[in-house]
Amino acid sequence: MVCVGVIGGGQLARMMIPAAINLGIDLRVFAEAEESSASMAVSHVGDYSQLSELEAFAQNCDVITFDHEHVPIAHLEALQAQGVRVYPPPGALALTHNKIVMRHALATLGVPQPRWAVVESEADDDRALREVGGFPCVAKIPVGGYDGKGVRVIDSFGAIADWTAAGPVLLEEKVDFRRELAQLGARRPSGQWVPWPVVETRQAEGVCSEVLAPAPGISPWQSAEAESIARSIAESIAVVGVLAVELFGTTDGRILVNELAMRPHNSGHVFTELSVTSQFEQHLRAVTDFPLGSPELISGIGVMANVFGHVDDLLARTASERFPEVKIHDYTKAPRPGRKAGHCVAVGSDVADTLGRALAVRAILHGENYDG
Amino acid sequence: MVCVGVIGGGQLARMMIPAAINLGIDLRVFAEAEESSASMAVSHVGDYSQLSELEAFAQNCDVITFDHEHVPIAHLEALQAQGVRVYPPPGALALTHNKIVMRHALATLGVPQPRWAVVESEADDDRALREVGGFPCVAKIPVGGYDGKGVRVIDSFGAIADWTAAGPVLLEEKVDFRRELAQLGARRPSGQWVPWPVVETRQAEGVCSEVLAPAPGISPWQSAEAESIARSIAESIAVVGVLAVELFGTTDGRILVNELAMRPHNSGHVFTELSVTSQFEQHLRAVTDFPLGSPELISGIGVMANVFGHVDDLLARTASERFPEVKIHDYTKAPRPGRKAGHCVAVGSDVADTLGRALAVRAILHGENYDG
Repeated sequence: MVCVGVIGGGQLARMMIPAAINLGIDLRVFAEAEESSASMAVSHVGDYSQLSELEAFAQNCDVITFDHEHVPIAHLEALQAQGVRVYPPPGALALTHNKIVMRHALATLGVPQPRWAVVESEADDDRALREVGGFPCVAKIPVGGYDGKGVRVIDSFGAIADWTAAGPVLLEEKVDFRRELAQLGARRPSGQWVPWPVVETRQAEGVCSEVLAPAPGISPWQSAEAESIARSIAESIAVVGVLAVELFGTTDGRILVNELAMRPHNSGHVFTELSVTSQFEQHLRAVTDFPLGSPELISGIGVMANVFGHVDDLLARTASERFPEVKIHDYTKAPRPGRKAGHCVAVGSDVADTLGRALAVRAILHGENYDG
Repeated sequence: MVCVGVIGGGQLARMMIPAAINLGIDLRVFAEAEESSASMAVSHVGDYSQLSELEAFAQNCDVITFDHEHVPIAHLEALQAQGVRVYPPPGALALTHNKIVMRHALATLGVPQPRWAVVESEADDDRALREVGGFPCVAKIPVGGYDGKGVRVIDSFGAIADWTAAGPVLLEEKVDFRRELAQLGARRPSGQWVPWPVVETRQAEGVCSEVLAPAPGISPWQSAEAESIARSIAESIAVVGVLAVELFGTTDGRILVNELAMRPHNSGHVFTELSVTSQFEQHLRAVTDFPLGSPELISGIGVMANVFGHVDDLLARTASERFPEVKIHDYTKAPRPGRKAGHCVAVGSDVADTLGRALAVRAILHGENYDG
């Protein structure tokens, strides 16, 4: 029985459990605390910034993969040098750890992306601003941002004085986008690449709120372009596992790369119900170099809606009674306002109806008035 | 977070794990050994025939349910008397513990079943034989038989002399059946009952080999009759959880009850891929009195094939490469000839094609020559 070790005990590790059970994989999770979303599979509680702890954990695993991208790349390189299989490999993962590294790498690849520049000192301001097309533009701290944190739309350099004092800042043009998209796929060490159809992601206050799959009304060209961008990235940097490429669909019809993740991603949760193979199953297949599953969709459209704060049992009962076909996933996290606590997925044949049912279930779970 | 305790650590408990993860249920398993199919969820290793151990386990659970039917009914009644919620309730479960009790109960219900009689001593022989229509007939030991064990087709009472010496034996007419069927559904304590469509089960040497869902070519009347039989049983004896009713479809078009199980059942594995709600999810919903999920099918036909002996990793890779859309489930049991080691499920729109793909995957897993 192959053993997969996952660093991080959050909801992504949690959702790998069903896939591991079906595939017959021995899944072991390295968590930061006893009480974690993935607690059922936790075999080690500790600090992932300590190489010695990672080494002890990795000893019993055939391959190491991730629930998050916070493990220092140097540690992963050290593990790899000791013969531990680390997927995605540290060299690929480095792109998701530092947005400036990512922009440089994508530029080398020639993949379409927003105009960007790096500000390291005041002397860079004018040049950088010209390169991104002036204010307003987007400023990002290169390391550690997520869900809109570490990202600001700015009208002056004064607005990021705190960041520039601390280190380099990435500037990006403020893209005039019609909508945001995400292209997911998985790649095996042996090279097999299997993409899902491109999805539309909708954000609220910088946080993913809903995902519609496939992206409604996507043109064949855009669809092919998104897939080709993701495949190019995956192949050129030898990603292993799920790659999620967040994209802008611009008002003038172009596709630009926004962000990368090399693990199952919020934009792919919809595939658990919508596709023959979930992203969690595909990730485990990929990192164990097992033939990838079919990405075929079992229905015309799927909608995922994130649930924030808490999944209340009584409200979940109400939602499930009214919509017995909509699947609610509860990450069993401690309640906290704004926290991603779960998600729900509706599938169907009509976009408006399917979106309506997913939003209705979320509204009920959020305790909002819902007339259905 | 609601806590469900499962007695037994076999593949049925194992397959409850994915459903528990999605529903946010704290699943805890009482297993007989550290190394069990459901080891990821095991919280107690011990002997289920010891009431004190069951009591200790039940203390931390909101409800107790089962992976098998071997726990003494008296123990379950004792737990219930102490206020522990036991689902299915011991009174219902008693029918699955003793086939003579079951035949009596079904007779009281008036549900169609094969002719039957009990042999307690030689003095009963002539009467019993007349009641079941003479030799050849089927003899069953009332307690503990499964997968064809404890069942004999006999031509003389000499063939069961060992059994009759030990205790009562159930005789049943040898039903002239065209095929075997199974009707599954789930019932909540509050009464909600949700059935799946009736399935066809195919046996090899007394063991379930394949399941086709829905049963191909089933008439609307037979379908309704199967559902109505299962519903009557569930309601009259207040089953909670999944009820599986194994049925004979006779050559003259009748439906007769063969066996009962009050837990997820081999004949329902196909619904994990074929239905919006798997039997494992539905069972957990039912025993926690959570609204039942939709039993809608996502495809026209599903075929489950059991895999015996061992699920070999290399053969699984070959199978998965040729049939990336067929799902293989590995129970991660120690290899043993003839043992149910896993199963595979294909779904599709055409019966012959879908059956062909499921059988092809099993043939590959069994290391048989397969020309595909």
